[in-house]
Amino acid sequence: MVKEGFGELIDLETALQLLLSHARTLPSEEAPLSRARARVLAQNVSAKIDVPHFDRSAMDGFAVVASDTFSASQNSPVALTLRESIACGEIARRRVLRGSCAEIATGGAMPSGVDAVVMVENTQVEGKKVLVYKSVAPRTNVVARGSDIRKGETVLQKGTVLTPAHLGALAAVGITTVSVRRRVKVVLFSTGSEIVAPGKRLGRGKVFNINSVTLRAALEELGCEVEDYGVVKDTEREITRLVLKGVRSADIVIFSGGSSLGRSDLAPEVLGKLGSLLFHGIAVKPGKPTVAGVVRGKIVIGLPGYPVSALSNVYILVAPLIERMTGATGITRFTRAMLAQKVASTVGRYEFLPVRLEGEFAHPVMRGSSAITTLARAHGFVEIPENVEVVEKGTPVTVRLF
Amino acid sequence: MVKEGFGELIDLETALQLLLSHARTLPSEEAPLSRARARVLAQNVSAKIDVPHFDRSAMDGFAVVASDTFSASQNSPVALTLRESIACGEIARRRVLRGSCAEIATGGAMPSGVDAVVMVENTQVEGKKVLVYKSVAPRTNVVARGSDIRKGETVLQKGTVLTPAHLGALAAVGITTVSVRRRVKVVLFSTGSEIVAPGKRLGRGKVFNINSVTLRAALEELGCEVEDYGVVKDTEREITRLVLKGVRSADIVIFSGGSSLGRSDLAPEVLGKLGSLLFHGIAVKPGKPTVAGVVRGKIVIGLPGYPVSALSNVYILVAPLIERMTGATGITRFTRAMLAQKVASTVGRYEFLPVRLEGEFAHPVMRGSSAITTLARAHGFVEIPENVEVVEKGTPVTVRLF
Repeated sequence: MVKEGFGELIDLETALQLLLSHARTLPSEEAPLSRARARVLAQNVSAKIDVPHFDRSAMDGFAVVASDTFSASQNSPVALTLRESIACGEIARRRVLRGSCAEIATGGAMPSGVDAVVMVENTQVEGKKVLVYKSVAPRTNVVARGSDIRKGETVLQKGTVLTPAHLGALAAVGITTVSVRRRVKVVLFSTGSEIVAPGKRLGRGKVFNINSVTLRAALEELGCEVEDYGVVKDTEREITRLVLKGVRSADIVIFSGGSSLGRSDLAPEVLGKLGSLLFHGIAVKPGKPTVAGVVRGKIVIGLPGYPVSALSNVYILVAPLIERMTGATGITRFTRAMLAQKVASTVGRYEFLPVRLEGEFAHPVMRGSSAITTLARAHGFVEIPENVEVVEKGTPVTVRLF
Repeated sequence: MVKEGFGELIDLETALQLLLSHARTLPSEEAPLSRARARVLAQNVSAKIDVPHFDRSAMDGFAVVASDTFSASQNSPVALTLRESIACGEIARRRVLRGSCAEIATGGAMPSGVDAVVMVENTQVEGKKVLVYKSVAPRTNVVARGSDIRKGETVLQKGTVLTPAHLGALAAVGITTVSVRRRVKVVLFSTGSEIVAPGKRLGRGKVFNINSVTLRAALEELGCEVEDYGVVKDTEREITRLVLKGVRSADIVIFSGGSSLGRSDLAPEVLGKLGSLLFHGIAVKPGKPTVAGVVRGKIVIGLPGYPVSALSNVYILVAPLIERMTGATGITRFTRAMLAQKVASTVGRYEFLPVRLEGEFAHPVMRGSSAITTLARAHGFVEIPENVEVVEKGTPVTVRLF
C-alpha cells in the first residue's frame, strides 16, 4: 500500500532551469496608461519629442538677457523695460531686445532673445520698468529644451514593470497606450478529500481550503490572471480531467495536494501519462514534494498540500517562471537586514526561511510547513543555499518581501 | 501683477498634523477573501476554532503508541498489527490498541489511542504486520490540535494590510468574508492652460498632462479609488466648480498646478473662500508650493504642477493621510542601503531625495522637480530631515520603495 520514496531529489536551480526551458514568452497587447500600472513593457519606448519641447522658465520672474543684469546689485538695480507678460501655455508675441524683459510664470515658454530668468523675489516693478537687484548668469532658472528627455532617447526599456513615475515618463512624451505583455493566465485547483471550502461545516479530519485563497492572492500580486476550479477529490480521473481542461485555456496549471507519498500520490503518475514529467521532489525546505510536468505544451505544477510549502514554492519556483514568460525585470522587492538569531539549516537542502522585520533585524518565524501563521507573521523570506549549514546571528541577509 | 511670496513656510510635520487632524476614519464594508488582498482590516479577527482542529499526522507513515516502539532498532524491529488505513479527510473506525497501529497519510487525523507517527521510511509491511525499525518519542511527527492557531486567539489585528498569507490565516479559521475599510475615494484634476492631454497636438509652450497619470497610479497603489476630472483652465470659476463637485463624492480632492506664485495662483484664494485654508507653502524640497484646506468637511490639496513635486507630495503628505483614514499599518515598504555619494541639503527644508538602488548602494538621481525622468529612474526615496545639512557618502539610509 505504501509507495516508494522520491528517489533522488532535484536541486532548486536544476528544477528552475527545467521549468524555464519550457516557458514561452507571452504575446503583447495594448493598454491605455490609466490601466498599465504594474504591467510589463513589451518593447523599448523611445521619445518622439524633446521634453520639455521648448526652453521653460523654472521660476516666476522676468525673462532677461543675462548680460543686461551683470552690473545689478542690491544697492544699484538695473532697470529693464517690461515688454509683456507670458503666462504658462502662452507664447510671447515678440522678441525681447536688450534692455527689456518679459514677465514669465513658472513653466512658461522663454521668448526669443532672452537667456535667463530673474526670480520675482529679486525684482521690483515700477510702472513700465522692472528693477533687477541681482545679476544672473546665462541659463539661470531656465529648464532647457530636451533636458528631461531628448528626442530619440530610449525612455523605458522592454521588461520594465511600470511604476507611477514610469507612466509619467510615457505621458511626458505624449504616449497614450503602451505595448505590454499579456498577463499570465493561471488555472488553480486544490485536491484532497480532507479539504473543505471555508464557510462549510468542518467535519473531524477535515481542514479548510487555504491554498485556493493564498495561491490566488500571491499569483495576482505577481500580475497573473487567476481562474480557480475549486476543490476536487484526489483521484486520477479528477486530476486528469482538470489538468486537461486547464491546459486548454491557461498558460500554467497549478494544483495543490496529492503530490506527497502514500496512496494519494497520483500527481506524478497523471503528469507522466498526460505529457512529460519534469521532476518529482525538489531539495528545498519546505516544499520538497513538488511535481512538475509539461502537458500539451503547458507547464503543470503540483504543489504540496501544506499551505506554507505551497506558497513558498510560488515565490521560489513560479515567480521566476512568470518573470521569464513576461520578460519582467524587478517584479519582486527586497530589503536588507541582519539575522536576529543563529539559524541551522540542512546541508543539501535549499531553505526558505520566513522572517519578521523589526528595525534592522530579521527574526526567523518558522513554525512548521503546515502552519499558515508562520507566513502571516512574516514580512518576507531569506534564502539559505544548499551548501550552508549555519547562518550566524548578525549576518547581513537579503529579504525578499511578500 | 506679481503677488506677494508665501510668507512663512510651514514645516512638514506641522503640515501633516494639520491634515491628520481633519482626517476621518472611513466606514468598513464586507469583502470576500478572494477580493480582500491589500485591503485594510477594520477589526481584530479572532479564531472560532483550533487550527488544526484535530491532532494531525505530519508524515506518511504509521500511527503508533510511542512506548510500543521504544525497543525498536534497525537490527531488531518491533512488529505491530496493522488495524486500518486512514486517508486524509477520513477518521479512524476504531481505537488503536497497544501492539497495533494504523496506516496514516500526511495530514490525516490521528486515531484515538496513539500518540506518535513512525515515518514510512522506517517501516516494512509484511502481510498484516508492520515492522518498525526506529523508536519514536511521544508526539513525534504529530501536529497538535491548535498548534497553528488556538481557538479564541487573535489571528489578525485591525489595521493589517492583507497579504496572501494573512488571507490564508483567515481561511484557516473558516472565514469567508472580512470587514475591511472602504477604499479612500479621491477626485483628481489638473489645472493650467499649458496642459494638453497626451495624444493631442502639442503646441509651443504646452506640455503633456503627466500628473493625471502619475497621481492616479500612485493613489491606486495606496489603495484609493480614483476619479479623474481631467484638465481645466486655471481660473477661479473652474477650480471652484470642480472642488465643490469633488467634495460631494470624494473623501479627498487633489488637484495639481495653480498653487505657485504669480498671476495664476488661485488655489489658496479659492480654498479660503470655499472653506478654511490649512496652509500654503511647506518647507519641503521639492514640493514647496503646496496648499491645503478643508471644504465642507473634506480635505482638499493643491499640489504643485511640476510632476516630481506633485508625486513626491503624494508619498510624503497623502500616504500618511490615507493610513490615518483607513487605520492601515504598513501600507508602504522600505529597504536599507548606503548612500552612494555625499548629499548637501538645505537646512530648514525637509528633502525628498529620489534614489536608484544598485546592490547595497542608494544613488541619488535628482535632476530637477520638472523632470519626470528623475523619478522614473529611481526605486524609492530617502528623507533628509530639516536640520541636516550634509549626508556623507556611505551613511546607512532607509529607502521608502516606490
